[in-house]
Amino acid sequence: MEARILRGPQPRGREKLARLIEWLHWVIAEAELYDVRYPVKGAYVWRPYGMKIRRNVEAAMRRLLEETGHGEVLFPVFIPYEFFAKESEHIRGFEEEVFWVTKGLQEGESRLVLRPTSETAIMPMFKLWIRDHTDLPYKVYQIVSVFRAETKMTHPLIRLREISMFKEAHTAHVDREDAERQVREAVDIYRRFFDELAVPYLISRRPDWDKFAGAVYTIAFDTVLPDGRALQIGTVHYLGTNFSRVFEVTYLTPDGRHELVHTTSYGISERSIAAMLAVHGDDRGLVLPPSVSPYKLVIVPIFYSDEEYAAMVQASRGLASELQAAGISAIIDERRDKTPGWKYHYWELLGVPLRVEIGRRDVEEGRVVIARRDTLEKVSVPRGSVVDHVRSLLSEVQENLRREAWQRLSASIKRVETLEDARVVVGEERAVAEVPWNGRDECGVKLQDAVDANALGVPLDRDPDVGGYDLRDPICGDRATYWLRIARRY
Amino acid sequence: MEARILRGPQPRGREKLARLIEWLHWVIAEAELYDVRYPVKGAYVWRPYGMKIRRNVEAAMRRLLEETGHGEVLFPVFIPYEFFAKESEHIRGFEEEVFWVTKGLQEGESRLVLRPTSETAIMPMFKLWIRDHTDLPYKVYQIVSVFRAETKMTHPLIRLREISMFKEAHTAHVDREDAERQVREAVDIYRRFFDELAVPYLISRRPDWDKFAGAVYTIAFDTVLPDGRALQIGTVHYLGTNFSRVFEVTYLTPDGRHELVHTTSYGISERSIAAMLAVHGDDRGLVLPPSVSPYKLVIVPIFYSDEEYAAMVQASRGLASELQAAGISAIIDERRDKTPGWKYHYWELLGVPLRVEIGRRDVEEGRVVIARRDTLEKVSVPRGSVVDHVRSLLSEVQENLRREAWQRLSASIKRVETLEDARVVVGEERAVAEVPWNGRDECGVKLQDAVDANALGVPLDRDPDVGGYDLRDPICGDRATYWLRIARRY
Repeated sequence: MEARILRGPQPRGREKLARLIEWLHWVIAEAELYDVRYPVKGAYVWRPYGMKIRRNVEAAMRRLLEETGHGEVLFPVFIPYEFFAKESEHIRGFEEEVFWVTKGLQEGESRLVLRPTSETAIMPMFKLWIRDHTDLPYKVYQIVSVFRAETKMTHPLIRLREISMFKEAHTAHVDREDAERQVREAVDIYRRFFDELAVPYLISRRPDWDKFAGAVYTIAFDTVLPDGRALQIGTVHYLGTNFSRVFEVTYLTPDGRHELVHTTSYGISERSIAAMLAVHGDDRGLVLPPSVSPYKLVIVPIFYSDEEYAAMVQASRGLASELQAAGISAIIDERRDKTPGWKYHYWELLGVPLRVEIGRRDVEEGRVVIARRDTLEKVSVPRGSVVDHVRSLLSEVQENLRREAWQRLSASIKRVETLEDARVVVGEERAVAEVPWNGRDECGVKLQDAVDANALGVPLDRDPDVGGYDLRDPICGDRATYWLRIARRY
Repeated sequence: MEARILRGPQPRGREKLARLIEWLHWVIAEAELYDVRYPVKGAYVWRPYGMKIRRNVEAAMRRLLEETGHGEVLFPVFIPYEFFAKESEHIRGFEEEVFWVTKGLQEGESRLVLRPTSETAIMPMFKLWIRDHTDLPYKVYQIVSVFRAETKMTHPLIRLREISMFKEAHTAHVDREDAERQVREAVDIYRRFFDELAVPYLISRRPDWDKFAGAVYTIAFDTVLPDGRALQIGTVHYLGTNFSRVFEVTYLTPDGRHELVHTTSYGISERSIAAMLAVHGDDRGLVLPPSVSPYKLVIVPIFYSDEEYAAMVQASRGLASELQAAGISAIIDERRDKTPGWKYHYWELLGVPLRVEIGRRDVEEGRVVIARRDTLEKVSVPRGSVVDHVRSLLSEVQENLRREAWQRLSASIKRVETLEDARVVVGEERAVAEVPWNGRDECGVKLQDAVDANALGVPLDRDPDVGGYDLRDPICGDRATYWLRIARRY
């Protein structure tokens, strides 16, 4: 498989990305992914190219959930207010954030909440579905719209009033041990999911003051966007018996006792797509991981006459069907009124991983040119081995995107010991600081204020404890036990 | 492929089905498709087996729409009231039926309507997306939840307050001619969709008093359920410039003029699934068309000892992987604590098209037994040719369901000439009557009242005119021009 290098790796501009929200507005408009001009705040429109990407992302998630025994369900959007209000912490956390429906109700009907999350919709059904220990664990998921009456500034894909791609899983278990095993399974599923999107992540146990309303504890996945802000991209909650107690969801044990189930829930949204676009994109536009790119490659026939056009299009179609037969989805840009240069820019904007150029000389020499979107490299390969080259280049692109994104993430986490250093890391270097912490809420909250940042929590993906080091909590001054991650956050 | 008949076609009981709503409640509960116990009227829960069927139905629809150049989009649930109210006929038709959100809004924000259909959400975006004639036709679709504040009795899958599987397509065209070409394309897509579900249909042009609010005209697909009532299962609307005028959606013609686009919309919902379940089901439960059945066949190993269990399960797995390799999804019921008879009933309830039984004698003789869900026939076939037998049986089942359902539909349409006969056909025979009609609204409306039925409209799938016959409108007494279909309707 002799390949001739025509152009080596090129530096990719990522300046625009530093102004992330601006870049996101630009790229979703130019690539026609998503439209922010819909006349309701925080509610946007997915366009066909965006939907194709989204469907591939959903399929990846579905596959992981089905493989691990989750059944897909679909619950109503409406939750009766009295169900929504049953769990006191939950209602306290969400009450200000929900939309209510008041017109259209039946006489005497309770007001209806548009679900902001579905624990309180699902528990009454778990009560009906779960009878005895042989029914457990019970694992379901759905991909739905949820609603949050956001008063803050909304941003496409990131902060929404209608979150239209909320994948929420809900599970019930015989005891805490099995529920915590499920928490670990969920964390593992999310790792594999983000690995498929080549999105790097931090896994942290959220501090108690920032856990999900109604949870015993919350484990969160965050990534760091090119502007240095952390973005929460997934959460896993151990809910204990907080919900099962108020909804009376019990099961019969083998020895005939009724016990409360322990439940968990875990969610992912279109923020996963925002993260994927932002961590890989550049000044030319999208750079999609091959795993979820709607087209793995685009073929651009190069022609200077009608005769050449016919011949090059024919050569392109031959190649496309060969690739198709090998399971590689290719698209041919046959437009006659656009120049090759225009098309290169167009497909770079759309983030298609590989571009194949077929011109007269290539055909005569029995070769084709392949350009990589990620490194902008160009190689010339023999026509006979294109499929093999494409296949190995696609896995190289996937791996390269993953590796580079992880390197950037790692470079943006810094352990510091003083408040001053924490401020420099978060404020000037726009990175995530890990700061010694005594584990007490009041000291952590004060630290947030002092640094003007949010605590992401205690690391779960590296040593959470300061270990034998005699480190001090920089706020309260006493001996520190943990590292606490802090960062500016979306 | 020598097959030995062990049992010929059996009569299938369809008595329960005559009480359709009861049967539907029974089957969706027993087969765990769908749960009606959710605590909001007209809002139900899809369970995993139901979701698997639904996903296959959606995939069939998506394939047909993508093949014909429709791009998938996703619009917000919220429509600002002032947009919703722009088209006067539309708001008049839907105003009483919509849910409003009033809590959770921003200061000064217009009240938000939960979409009952999306014309008024999509038009403001068409205005932004469509510039000149080269952008047309513009064809999009989405599969979403829509909301109707139904005051009538709700029924699972059939009459809902949250319709959770609303496939709506919206298109824009240069002129009436192209829009009407699209109407014919939509009718053709729906034909192919219902053919895939083996659901028979009547195609009628709805009378003006029953067209979609805002349409120039509406073409509807209806099927006849086993209780004799017609169910509307799809509609196609030509909207003219009614919506483009109020939303100012224009395009630039080649000679530089601004013209209004002509639009269409067409919808299908989970009623398509209700129809599929009802037209094929029987007293034992579901009978699923192979085209959308989550499992094409179930393998039941027959055993009377531990040793036999191991051997039969092994034989079953060998067969399952052979079938899998041939692209036929099979499931093995390996449960030890259930008898074969129990399992037969279970999988019959779930409607799996074929059942393969593998017992010791079968293995010794090198044969397997295949039972058909539709005819309850049993044949014994050589082990070596199972895959071929299964493949041809699956297409026979599909074809047989289609043929039988169409026969029943045809038998339930009767042409009559007098009011008395119409009453007998609709009231006693529980069928659809085609009655001569002069084409005037007031005579048609009176006919509905006189027969206590609804007009489905003028046939488009057979000759709509009475032709040369000198037939009289039975209400108004003058000469009839058309046939008008009338029936009791859901």
